[in-house]
Amino acid sequence: MKAAIVGATGYGGIELIRLLHNHPEVKKIAVFSSSQEGKTMAESYPHVSEIIDETLEDINVEHLKHHDVVFLSTPPGVSADLTGQLVPGTKVIDLSGDLRLKDASVYEKWYGRSSAETSLLEKAVYGLTEWRKEEIEKTDLLANPGCYPTAVLLGLAPLVKEGAIDANQVIIDAKSGTTGAGRSLNAITHFSEMNDNFKVYKVNEHKHTPEIEQELSGWMQENATVTFTPHLVPMTRGIMATMYAPLHKGWTEQNVKEIYDKAYSDKTFVRVRKSGTYPFTKEVYGTNYCDIGVTVDERTGRITVVSVIDNLVKGASGQAVQNMNVMFGLPEETGLYSVPIYP
Amino acid sequence: MKAAIVGATGYGGIELIRLLHNHPEVKKIAVFSSSQEGKTMAESYPHVSEIIDETLEDINVEHLKHHDVVFLSTPPGVSADLTGQLVPGTKVIDLSGDLRLKDASVYEKWYGRSSAETSLLEKAVYGLTEWRKEEIEKTDLLANPGCYPTAVLLGLAPLVKEGAIDANQVIIDAKSGTTGAGRSLNAITHFSEMNDNFKVYKVNEHKHTPEIEQELSGWMQENATVTFTPHLVPMTRGIMATMYAPLHKGWTEQNVKEIYDKAYSDKTFVRVRKSGTYPFTKEVYGTNYCDIGVTVDERTGRITVVSVIDNLVKGASGQAVQNMNVMFGLPEETGLYSVPIYP
Amino acid sequence: MKAAIVGATGYGGIELIRLLHNHPEVKKIAVFSSSQEGKTMAESYPHVSEIIDETLEDINVEHLKHHDVVFLSTPPGVSADLTGQLVPGTKVIDLSGDLRLKDASVYEKWYGRSSAETSLLEKAVYGLTEWRKEEIEKTDLLANPGCYPTAVLLGLAPLVKEGAIDANQVIIDAKSGTTGAGRSLNAITHFSEMNDNFKVYKVNEHKHTPEIEQELSGWMQENATVTFTPHLVPMTRGIMATMYAPLHKGWTEQNVKEIYDKAYSDKTFVRVRKSGTYPFTKEVYGTNYCDIGVTVDERTGRITVVSVIDNLVKGASGQAVQNMNVMFGLPEETGLYSVPIYP
Amino acid sequence: MKAAIVGATGYGGIELIRLLHNHPEVKKIAVFSSSQEGKTMAESYPHVSEIIDETLEDINVEHLKHHDVVFLSTPPGVSADLTGQLVPGTKVIDLSGDLRLKDASVYEKWYGRSSAETSLLEKAVYGLTEWRKEEIEKTDLLANPGCYPTAVLLGLAPLVKEGAIDANQVIIDAKSGTTGAGRSLNAITHFSEMNDNFKVYKVNEHKHTPEIEQELSGWMQENATVTFTPHLVPMTRGIMATMYAPLHKGWTEQNVKEIYDKAYSDKTFVRVRKSGTYPFTKEVYGTNYCDIGVTVDERTGRITVVSVIDNLVKGASGQAVQNMNVMFGLPEETGLYSVPIYP
Repeated sequence: MKAAIVGATGYGGIELIRLLHNHPEVKKIAVFSSSQEGKTMAESYPHVSEIIDETLEDINVEHLKHHDVVFLSTPPGVSADLTGQLVPGTKVIDLSGDLRLKDASVYEKWYGRSSAETSLLEKAVYGLTEWRKEEIEKTDLLANPGCYPTAVLLGLAPLVKEGAIDANQVIIDAKSGTTGAGRSLNAITHFSEMNDNFKVYKVNEHKHTPEIEQELSGWMQENATVTFTPHLVPMTRGIMATMYAPLHKGWTEQNVKEIYDKAYSDKTFVRVRKSGTYPFTKEVYGTNYCDIGVTVDERTGRITVVSVIDNLVKGASGQAVQNMNVMFGLPEETGLYSVPIYP
Repeated sequence: MKAAIVGATGYGGIELIRLLHNHPEVKKIAVFSSSQEGKTMAESYPHVSEIIDETLEDINVEHLKHHDVVFLSTPPGVSADLTGQLVPGTKVIDLSGDLRLKDASVYEKWYGRSSAETSLLEKAVYGLTEWRKEEIEKTDLLANPGCYPTAVLLGLAPLVKEGAIDANQVIIDAKSGTTGAGRSLNAITHFSEMNDNFKVYKVNEHKHTPEIEQELSGWMQENATVTFTPHLVPMTRGIMATMYAPLHKGWTEQNVKEIYDKAYSDKTFVRVRKSGTYPFTKEVYGTNYCDIGVTVDERTGRITVVSVIDNLVKGASGQAVQNMNVMFGLPEETGLYSVPIYP
Repeated sequence: MKAAIVGATGYGGIELIRLLHNHPEVKKIAVFSSSQEGKTMAESYPHVSEIIDETLEDINVEHLKHHDVVFLSTPPGVSADLTGQLVPGTKVIDLSGDLRLKDASVYEKWYGRSSAETSLLEKAVYGLTEWRKEEIEKTDLLANPGCYPTAVLLGLAPLVKEGAIDANQVIIDAKSGTTGAGRSLNAITHFSEMNDNFKVYKVNEHKHTPEIEQELSGWMQENATVTFTPHLVPMTRGIMATMYAPLHKGWTEQNVKEIYDKAYSDKTFVRVRKSGTYPFTKEVYGTNYCDIGVTVDERTGRITVVSVIDNLVKGASGQAVQNMNVMFGLPEETGLYSVPIYP
Repeated sequence: MKAAIVGATGYGGIELIRLLHNHPEVKKIAVFSSSQEGKTMAESYPHVSEIIDETLEDINVEHLKHHDVVFLSTPPGVSADLTGQLVPGTKVIDLSGDLRLKDASVYEKWYGRSSAETSLLEKAVYGLTEWRKEEIEKTDLLANPGCYPTAVLLGLAPLVKEGAIDANQVIIDAKSGTTGAGRSLNAITHFSEMNDNFKVYKVNEHKHTPEIEQELSGWMQENATVTFTPHLVPMTRGIMATMYAPLHKGWTEQNVKEIYDKAYSDKTFVRVRKSGTYPFTKEVYGTNYCDIGVTVDERTGRITVVSVIDNLVKGASGQAVQNMNVMFGLPEETGLYSVPIYP
């Protein structure tokens, strides 16, 4: 297989390179950038010196078409245009948020810009791999989920699908490492002011909110509105979503455990922890795992779900490769099955 | 004034030394330890070399009585005994959790050990300074609040007291730096496994839960049960509590702003942020401030309160000194009014 | 006293504000900025909300002259011009590197820009307080030392002045927290790439090299050429300089200890550690101390000196205030004597 | 191949598991521990849940013999005894320091304990793979190099072997992440006191000093004595050694570049950076690379060499696997060729 990465110098791009370099079926990785044409990857990232010798090419649709799969790791507003020219013909996996929301007006409200064409939105499959495998197998246009929604949705899916909670009552308190904010320089991620500090941001305003609500609504078969608060942790990688909801009458910790086991016991990349134990972000570092801990508090009648991922792997490039595997009929784990780097 | 610190080699103790050394009315600081008698403070903490030349003394009630105020920065179970011998006669400020809970059975359930005598529990004033000043002025036995409860209660007080929310509906997601876990070595705070990592712990089981509930119940005039989840952030100091509750009908962001202003506009150490802005933990680093941001989400009908403190200052030793000031009729800010160290 | 700070929104400026706010003789702090006129300090730094209510003024020489002392915390090239208009008449403390090098050609070679006028260079006193007190008392133009040179020179002074080593043989391996690189955004201090990372930079090219050599040369009474390598540590504050040189024949660890004691036993802000112990950067955090450890290795005949400071305090704003105290006839420690914040 | 790991719950052990799990020729990994018999690896390290299901066995020589290779990741003093019982017959790779020093008296002086038997010391090959490949191919007892010596020796080898410097003049200033100090709890690596801090330790006393000197002496064909100072960086993984020496007359940056290219152009895991650029520790994170930057300062006549490795990979378990590959006639890179995880 030949893969192309558009936007290869961002963190999503370099992580795709790391993962695809290790993928047994990918023989060639071409890299594209709108701003750094002619540079080698090693000029931008010295850590790939003598490993990746590709030169960045300007974005060129004709050239992109010569690849089996094109990954778009681009800023908002770019992929809509490119996708229209590549699909059908070339399989596209879009890591931006442009094709995730089915309702153009919701996109426009939260992103503050025009949406992609409705035909593309309809065509794109939302790639939460564990829950959409059959659709992913058939599509050639994949909208790769956002980092927060991946952690949140994998954590809540069994509860919402089985009717154990009402998604409208869900509080999501999420914490992310700084790579989620990308490689662009920003005062909020200046080392001197992020180190030894803990920050909250975009309270009630984060773009991943409607993405979470869209999927929960589909599972509930009614509109879901959630409270979602993201925070920044002084660490490089990792997301923990701590989620709270009242548990419906009749449900117990035992029932709950059963629906998680049913949902995930055959899923390689979702690991449900034993009762009374919870995952830490570093326990999935560098890998495609999503680890989940669940507990029911009899005092309050609430359930607490803790879900962790590596935001650059399962929250972005790893899930993109997992989706690529599914789209090409390969085993889901191909090139992704590794032990987290710890400590 | 002459001050004595029992348990001077812990983080609460060394922070008391830092603050009292800067206090214009404290002329003498004596240090006591059950395990390090005869050592100088500088042997335990080289950073006080040539500044603090006190030698640690074994704990001796007769000697303690020669001081105007005794701070107990001791592990659970120690202060009950000492306090009984010192009060009345000597003013005692207890930084341990032993005298905070009025209901001995609740203490015994959450702490897993016998409670102090009821007479002491009744006598001890819970020292959340901003809300208990009149009682604090009159007492000679002060139970200094826990770090998490301080951040939580200052954040929620206006809402609960004014009836804007039902405390039973409150979700508290709290994040702390590692000094909250003390100086004792523990695998959870081993640098190699805490760095670049984010952890959740004691889900639904933290001892500060009943302390929060006790105070909220008093304000609500009925029993309150909350969900409280603590997390560990890879940073040294600081707590952020992010808190969620449905806002009662009729309340708006404007009303809410007014009750916070009413509660805190004359309180030096509580700073309420402008609408749409939220504090970060480092903005109170090394100081006695509690900074609060509040917002109402019209989409969900929920209020979000963000409250930050330095866990070792307002969450422990700083509030203890603030309480000492009140107990001795000094201006509350004496020795505590300083600019946070930033960055 | 009335103090003015030009460049108040940089890290040197905000640290001056923290220290001067705590200074008993400073009654008024005015803040100036070339780019943020009209903003309050709290807009730039929320941590000073309700403490510092000054508004930033545009730089105006007439206005500056109404202050007793003007601190210039400005980028290269600014202070030469301003200083000429303020001195004599107003005392000026320049925290930039513009007035430190006496030889204009050396400045031009290392800074790559035109030097200040020779008359200013001659007039400016290099303010390494512990070693230049008499000159500082008499000057109204002070060139405040660089952060690295402060740690290095305080560490090496006794050895070079007493002839125990040849400064031409000195290797200086220095490590700094990121605040030394300032508040301007830069890829090298982007959190995601600085966290959990250790960097070396400007090998043999750092501007502080000639500043170190100038002072050592004065002490040796011949030209000194040193090797100086700076590194960046994933921490906010602190410098450690580890320095190596062959010890001249006849010198022993005992002799060496004596010259350090002689040099520093009466200096409040320099603490020499006991044999076999060395300081860590955090042991001076937030304070004006320089802590030094020294050892002689009989196997190799070399001496190792370890010197630590807080780069923003003794390495910048603290030493500037110490120099202000000396220039105004106040005790050197005024407003600066505090316990390091630890941990 | 079947591999056994003795001391599997330490950081060297868990890193071996990560690497061997990814190795195409290793079909079975057995894990041994003297203290945690009967536990699963996941109990000690939750990040390997559902990946590694091995149970820890008590150390048993007969059982160990059934493996093709035994890795000893044990504290000082353990491997001497075990090795004697396993070799010949089973190939042994010892990651402890017990078999590295050929001179038993040197071991006893620096380690403060009895050395292994001389016959074992003579038999063990010091496994700095890039420079000892022929000997490694033939041995069945390998002494895996220490972390600091690996970074130092790869950095200095071309200079010393080609006679460009005198190793007696070398100053080595080394900085390590905290995993180098192991998993045992220690006050020096307590998060609250290591975070935002930079430490120096074991000045002139570190056990890796004689190991470095032994190898340099062999290359120089005379005794070499070096100055070596280790430091602790607030990061998890990575070593940077910054090394200084006067360059012999006649050598230029150009000559020096040539000898590095000659030494390493055909070595996969050593990457020499372009003139004027230097590696950062994170650029080798999680991989077996050693990256080197070299520069000559004409002002001082000194050369500076910067060498970085991941202390747990090239500095321990990665080099051990590289040596295993060589001992078994496999390509050196087998199972080790991957892109560093960045950022």
